[in-house]
Amino acid sequence: MKCLAWLDGTVCNLSEATVPLEDRSYLFGDGVYEVIKIYNKKPFFLKSHLKRLQNSAEAIEIKIPHSIEDIERSIFDLIEKSACVEGYLYMQISRGSAKRDHLLPQGTKSSMVMYVRELSSPGSLEEIQPADCITYPDERWFNCYIKSVNLLPNVIARHKADEKGAVEAIFYRPGGIVTEGTRTNVFAVIDGIVRTHPESRLILSGITRMIALEILDTMDIKFSEEAFNLEELKNASEVWTTSTGMEILPVARIDGQPVSDQVPGPVCHELIKRFWRKVEETCYDGGKR
Amino acid sequence: MKCLAWLDGTVCNLSEATVPLEDRSYLFGDGVYEVIKIYNKKPFFLKSHLKRLQNSAEAIEIKIPHSIEDIERSIFDLIEKSACVEGYLYMQISRGSAKRDHLLPQGTKSSMVMYVRELSSPGSLEEIQPADCITYPDERWFNCYIKSVNLLPNVIARHKADEKGAVEAIFYRPGGIVTEGTRTNVFAVIDGIVRTHPESRLILSGITRMIALEILDTMDIKFSEEAFNLEELKNASEVWTTSTGMEILPVARIDGQPVSDQVPGPVCHELIKRFWRKVEETCYDGGKR
Repeated sequence: MKCLAWLDGTVCNLSEATVPLEDRSYLFGDGVYEVIKIYNKKPFFLKSHLKRLQNSAEAIEIKIPHSIEDIERSIFDLIEKSACVEGYLYMQISRGSAKRDHLLPQGTKSSMVMYVRELSSPGSLEEIQPADCITYPDERWFNCYIKSVNLLPNVIARHKADEKGAVEAIFYRPGGIVTEGTRTNVFAVIDGIVRTHPESRLILSGITRMIALEILDTMDIKFSEEAFNLEELKNASEVWTTSTGMEILPVARIDGQPVSDQVPGPVCHELIKRFWRKVEETCYDGGKR
Repeated sequence: MKCLAWLDGTVCNLSEATVPLEDRSYLFGDGVYEVIKIYNKKPFFLKSHLKRLQNSAEAIEIKIPHSIEDIERSIFDLIEKSACVEGYLYMQISRGSAKRDHLLPQGTKSSMVMYVRELSSPGSLEEIQPADCITYPDERWFNCYIKSVNLLPNVIARHKADEKGAVEAIFYRPGGIVTEGTRTNVFAVIDGIVRTHPESRLILSGITRMIALEILDTMDIKFSEEAFNLEELKNASEVWTTSTGMEILPVARIDGQPVSDQVPGPVCHELIKRFWRKVEETCYDGGKR
């Protein structure tokens, strides 16, 4: 496939794509974004991602510079031109380019960029590498529900995880309340009940999180959008993360301690299977990936 | 003057300057910056700004891609080429351009950009427009001592101030502790003592803040780097902000309430005069601006 970028309608190679130095995303992180998984050339849960993009943009008063219909058309066109079968589409809306000033610029048009990259997903349970995670203080701001590109705290925490040989950092706020991961939502099975932090300003409401909750609702297990603390996390019988890129990812170890003898556990195992079925129903006309 | 940009050694018009779409400053706000005032073609307190830049870069493990000597030479060269007499120099160091991943990229070279713009300063007290400020919850992350481009919370607060006809938002943390402004440090005269929030992870240690403290040390007034709360702020006899761009700026009103009958008050007035003298000593060989 070709890595192509789309810059407000102009298509070029991603490696040659540039933005103005005075773009507010570059100078202030003044932009919002989405990452959408592509299965079988189809963007998965596209409408949910575009709805969230609208919510993020609205929260910080950025105007989306194209109609949703035009954006959808451009996405399918870009996937087609890229010849991308399995991958992801990244999109970012910036407040635009203006003389640097914290104040929102007047008369500046926001800008939108997209690009497509290849990304394969595990095709069987054997291909899944359960995650090692660390726990890390959640030092982010208080508006994590906005999917903005102010991601430095996430970058730092991901780096701290890497230094310990882990692939994800699970954030906790003062008092030990677990919020989410650097780029994932976190689920834990505690006393037989699946729990995850409720939607609030402290977490980003993940699309895969939502899909997981919908699937759990069809399963023979109790679940609750109720926050849990570090102690509960460490005593959970199962832990997994959800994200667009890594789907449902079972967690093997937290701060070096094994979660359980069996990873993925039975609930996570069933959730993964049903998630894949959902992908097949949605993007493969119900056939096999 | 000409608005010129410098991109790792290449000079071009600022309006034509671009950065890669995959630059980590654009995608993650993964960069640090400085703004340096230029008086009489000379960068004011250049070494202090470069030292702080090094501290910020070190805090998030970004390598500065040029030697400090080369950067200093390039700054003077850019000011000369721009024919800038009074203005400011903006510089930003980004972790560089790499395939998007929260994890710090391996083998990627960081990048540095600078540009110069015109900015005049008030030449007399009569030209100073005392500031209207609002107070606003400090919802930022907990590492505000790093001068990073994750500035969305500052942008939002500045916008909220503007909506109320004010030019600055003064942040307070839970409990009402005043930290700083969106792009300024805040000083208040409380019971005859000048106070400002101490250096900590909750504020950006301003260069003009430091200069103000040095000047206060030569004046016949007590001062203390001790935090104050909203009530103390609102009962202060004088309030001012400090910043590179706006120097020492007296505050006239906070949340619509006048600070005092006389703005600037006597301490702020003397501080401004001595600050200007310092500018003249440093950049005008002691002569008049």
